[in-house]
Amino acid sequence: MNEFELIAHLTEGLATRPDVLTGPGDDCAVLRMPDGRGPLLFKTDAVVEGVHFTTDTPPEKIGHKALARCLSDIAAMGGRPAHAVVTLAAPRQHDAERLSAIYRGINALANRHGVAIVGGETTSNPGGLLISIALLGTVPTGRAILRSGAKPGDALFVTGELGGSLQGRHLEFEPRVVEGAWLAERFEIHAMIDLSDGLAGDLRHILKQSGCGAEVLAKSLPISRAARLAARNESSAMPPLLAALTDGEDFELLFTVAAADAVALLDSWKTGFPKLKLTCIGKITAQPGLRIRTEDGGVRDMSEHGYAHFQES
Amino acid sequence: MNEFELIAHLTEGLATRPDVLTGPGDDCAVLRMPDGRGPLLFKTDAVVEGVHFTTDTPPEKIGHKALARCLSDIAAMGGRPAHAVVTLAAPRQHDAERLSAIYRGINALANRHGVAIVGGETTSNPGGLLISIALLGTVPTGRAILRSGAKPGDALFVTGELGGSLQGRHLEFEPRVVEGAWLAERFEIHAMIDLSDGLAGDLRHILKQSGCGAEVLAKSLPISRAARLAARNESSAMPPLLAALTDGEDFELLFTVAAADAVALLDSWKTGFPKLKLTCIGKITAQPGLRIRTEDGGVRDMSEHGYAHFQES
Repeated sequence: MNEFELIAHLTEGLATRPDVLTGPGDDCAVLRMPDGRGPLLFKTDAVVEGVHFTTDTPPEKIGHKALARCLSDIAAMGGRPAHAVVTLAAPRQHDAERLSAIYRGINALANRHGVAIVGGETTSNPGGLLISIALLGTVPTGRAILRSGAKPGDALFVTGELGGSLQGRHLEFEPRVVEGAWLAERFEIHAMIDLSDGLAGDLRHILKQSGCGAEVLAKSLPISRAARLAARNESSAMPPLLAALTDGEDFELLFTVAAADAVALLDSWKTGFPKLKLTCIGKITAQPGLRIRTEDGGVRDMSEHGYAHFQES
Repeated sequence: MNEFELIAHLTEGLATRPDVLTGPGDDCAVLRMPDGRGPLLFKTDAVVEGVHFTTDTPPEKIGHKALARCLSDIAAMGGRPAHAVVTLAAPRQHDAERLSAIYRGINALANRHGVAIVGGETTSNPGGLLISIALLGTVPTGRAILRSGAKPGDALFVTGELGGSLQGRHLEFEPRVVEGAWLAERFEIHAMIDLSDGLAGDLRHILKQSGCGAEVLAKSLPISRAARLAARNESSAMPPLLAALTDGEDFELLFTVAAADAVALLDSWKTGFPKLKLTCIGKITAQPGLRIRTEDGGVRDMSEHGYAHFQES
């Protein structure tokens, strides 16, 4: 059972309420408050020593990453983050200065994004450090952007560059909160997700929940310098195109809009975010599945378990 | 540095916002939503294998305890729980059925208290299972009960019985959510806390934050059968009075009301909750410190680090 199957299994038949507008399965839950007040976004995420960072990771960056991952999920709904609570689990023989530095990393990022840290829990964890953060956010009524709204014909966009995040970016990325809210306020974004598992995997979440397929142009993919360098310098590294499609932890935004809005959006983006790349990488199709159109004109199917079989020519 | 000192150190100078009515340091945070809507309660808590439960603990009870601890904090504010997100961290070689059973335990309790589980995150944790839950609740405007409102002369009440929770109750307790909301809606409760660290320790949180002291009558303390039995059967067990004062994880409610309200409250309680004990155990004093009046008429000071020196006569 992989992580997604396990989550699906665990979240079957969970307790719910009429005020849950969107439950498990999107980037955040969307909640209407019991007295009928407008939607809140609610998300939890955790980083673990040996999995998401190492013993040698500078502690400020651990804290930064822990909060940034949650912020990225709020961004993917087009929301604004507001309040966070932090669970910090550490071995009994912990280094108080390391924990303080983690908190400094959390706090610096929180300050930049107008987030209040409103509760902290510390507990012991024999195996190593674990930081779990739950984050609340807000979004205008009816404006939360789900994964399920993509439509055939939509243009598919991605912010920034893809691949090679584990070379360093995963500890330092600035979550696309400003950009996500900007998109939600100005355009009819049909579907959006943040890239945590790799473009191909995360795009498939949109496709599955929207009931459609996609065609991605290989040559349009904004491949990061880190992914290109890794491929040049390390014989074991993935080809850059494959890295851009499958590397995790990019934390860029992937979204779809009606094709008719695509040019206006790109123009407007260049004014709003002159330093951040925005790339149209393909389109949504009625035909299910994820297809990659390669530079030689061929089309490769990137089906559910197709990573291993996909090789760059 | 103990846990409380560490938390105080970590939460110094944290990012905040004007809509944070109560930040770290109470049972829950109290938040006014950005558009001025009424208060939300927000809390996070975690249970860890080897600390809060063992490898042999039935998994439904692990899930129950994980959520019940958070519910108890909402109860201590006089609030109603609403929405939860769950982080489940497990070793890579986990038992999917064990995780499912944990979720069943969470879900059964959530259903009983009208809580929706709106998000789940699973991740690996090399050292063992860890479950972190963040919970949202609601409370009528201006009615969240803090730790800081106790006044000299107040009567001091505790629900249920104290001590010996680790004999089994800590895995099965029903959080006092209904009772906490009932109290908040019907009486002017000045201060309230749920008992997680032991009566003496948790009462000191109220005293410190309210700037006053307390006198507790030893003979009035509702000592649990578990604590009495342990003292009788195990030579190494604590005397029952000391167990009632210092055992952790009782998860009962400790609160203060004006003395003038005490009799009416007790009468009303007997009608509302005929099966659950409510005991007046002492009073709040202007004189700082926590004093225990023993059956022989003596008074013992139970100062900050006084556990070790306190022996039953």
